[in-house]
Amino acid sequence: MNFNNIKPIADAALEQRIRRRLDSLTKPPGSLGRLESLAVQIGLIQATDMPRIAAKTIVIFGADHGVVEEGVSPYPSEVTGQMMANFRSGGAAISVLCRLYGIGSAIVDMGVGRPTRNFTREPAMTREQAEAAIARGMSFADAADVLGAGEMGIGNTTSAAALLSAMSGLDPTETAGRGTGLDENGIARKVNAIRRAIDLHRPDPGDPLGVLAALGGFEIAGIAGLILGGAQRRRLVVLDGFISCSAALIARALAPESMDYVVFSHRSAERGHRVMLDFLGAKPLFDLDMRLGEGSGAAIGMNLIEASLKLYREMATFESAGVSNR
Amino acid sequence: MNFNNIKPIADAALEQRIRRRLDSLTKPPGSLGRLESLAVQIGLIQATDMPRIAAKTIVIFGADHGVVEEGVSPYPSEVTGQMMANFRSGGAAISVLCRLYGIGSAIVDMGVGRPTRNFTREPAMTREQAEAAIARGMSFADAADVLGAGEMGIGNTTSAAALLSAMSGLDPTETAGRGTGLDENGIARKVNAIRRAIDLHRPDPGDPLGVLAALGGFEIAGIAGLILGGAQRRRLVVLDGFISCSAALIARALAPESMDYVVFSHRSAERGHRVMLDFLGAKPLFDLDMRLGEGSGAAIGMNLIEASLKLYREMATFESAGVSNR
Repeated sequence: MNFNNIKPIADAALEQRIRRRLDSLTKPPGSLGRLESLAVQIGLIQATDMPRIAAKTIVIFGADHGVVEEGVSPYPSEVTGQMMANFRSGGAAISVLCRLYGIGSAIVDMGVGRPTRNFTREPAMTREQAEAAIARGMSFADAADVLGAGEMGIGNTTSAAALLSAMSGLDPTETAGRGTGLDENGIARKVNAIRRAIDLHRPDPGDPLGVLAALGGFEIAGIAGLILGGAQRRRLVVLDGFISCSAALIARALAPESMDYVVFSHRSAERGHRVMLDFLGAKPLFDLDMRLGEGSGAAIGMNLIEASLKLYREMATFESAGVSNR
Repeated sequence: MNFNNIKPIADAALEQRIRRRLDSLTKPPGSLGRLESLAVQIGLIQATDMPRIAAKTIVIFGADHGVVEEGVSPYPSEVTGQMMANFRSGGAAISVLCRLYGIGSAIVDMGVGRPTRNFTREPAMTREQAEAAIARGMSFADAADVLGAGEMGIGNTTSAAALLSAMSGLDPTETAGRGTGLDENGIARKVNAIRRAIDLHRPDPGDPLGVLAALGGFEIAGIAGLILGGAQRRRLVVLDGFISCSAALIARALAPESMDYVVFSHRSAERGHRVMLDFLGAKPLFDLDMRLGEGSGAAIGMNLIEASLKLYREMATFESAGVSNR
């Protein structure tokens, strides 16, 4: 896979034009804080000083995980498929948030009921499967001009923590957390499963595709593809929590410039998310102590992005409103 | 003024019913984090396990400040009135956010062009004026079932920092910040003005009305009234940043139970806001590095509250969606 066509977004002249407009709006300079930086980022991504959002879509990738055999989730695997049905019928948290915020959704079966292999015993998937899953995620890059990452997959915090340990070298005790609600014994099983997997596969952070194939999952590969495809097509990609950030670890290793196109929406309550964000050098927009996944944090993040752009586009200037500047 | 009719919201049986519903929704228990606690708070305020929001309104109180004579703002006082016009014509940040989020607004002239007195020389207002301004704020408590606090007043971060110093005993170097963009010399003038005022008035935290009268401002009194009136009428009141939290200092001292009705939307970048929130024992919902005022943070907070209620009311249950529980 070749990602040479992903370009950094930096453009000093354009950034200056965007900042000049921001400073002409009726507010003290910089006083909208991160809502101003978001406007700059979107302008640079869209290569215009008048960026717009025509459509917002969250792509929800669902897949099952062979590692669930190791007792790493309090919920059974069939919940993945049941929740996919709940997304389709509009009853899940992400369904409610998408309706509230006017966000479209695409619900993508990446392997529901067709789990990855148990990565404590063998690679979760083949390299070919990993590439195909990334390509599938990339195919959603034209779904909207602002893309959000969502996921569902019982067992996937184990896969995400394993990816973080593999890419960062952090011990599994640093990366594994409660997920959907494990007790201390459950966390110990999860740590142990990840440790055995790392010992077995000896993943090489210089070979991100190999790491992904070893540790899964299909929905994580899909999100990595969404990031890479979004970056290729110059779309903003809004990430959610622990799972979608684990996909960012792979996307960044494959194409560092892809991170220019990413907004990290929130810090989740999942314990490994803080170190994961640190490792990514990412500063999320908010922390509401959420740990649901599905894209729920991304939906709120997309709404803040919409607010940022509305402010940038619709606020009066000191001149147009007849307000005295300092 | 008597606030004995403000009652605490605690109701153990009702809270249990609300939490039972939250745990029946298709998500791991507690995984919506603060969006769940907001639903509990609104339910307790409205005294029902099926709370609703029929209308949201931000009340924007505007007033001028005599202390501006001391060189405590980089903007001239006439900007207060100019920005009030900007609110009315829809060009300000708060106007854009209210449109985006379907929030109504009331724009209230509490003393634009009729400033408080310079509190470094004499009390900002009389006790009678302070009471009248609080009563005026209270009169907006029926504007909607979710109320937001907004304000405009060149010079008002000086008044707010003085109120914090008076109520907490913190030195003005801890409470005064850049406001709309003061440099170090400007901050020194601001600290000095507050110090002279504290020395002159010797404000007594046990007499909140006296503190408010000494240090102003009219818009801050209006917000204190909105909090107190909202609490009397069992409405949720969403606060904004440094200014509206300074009003909460007064409201809390007059009626501690009024704090049950308050949501602290965000931590602003104004330096004194962190210690102010600590002093109030408040944990805001988000921190986007904003420092604009007007109610801009409150508008985003009101939207999160709406999200919280939509999730609570519209999500499917494990039973209705046929999803296996743990």
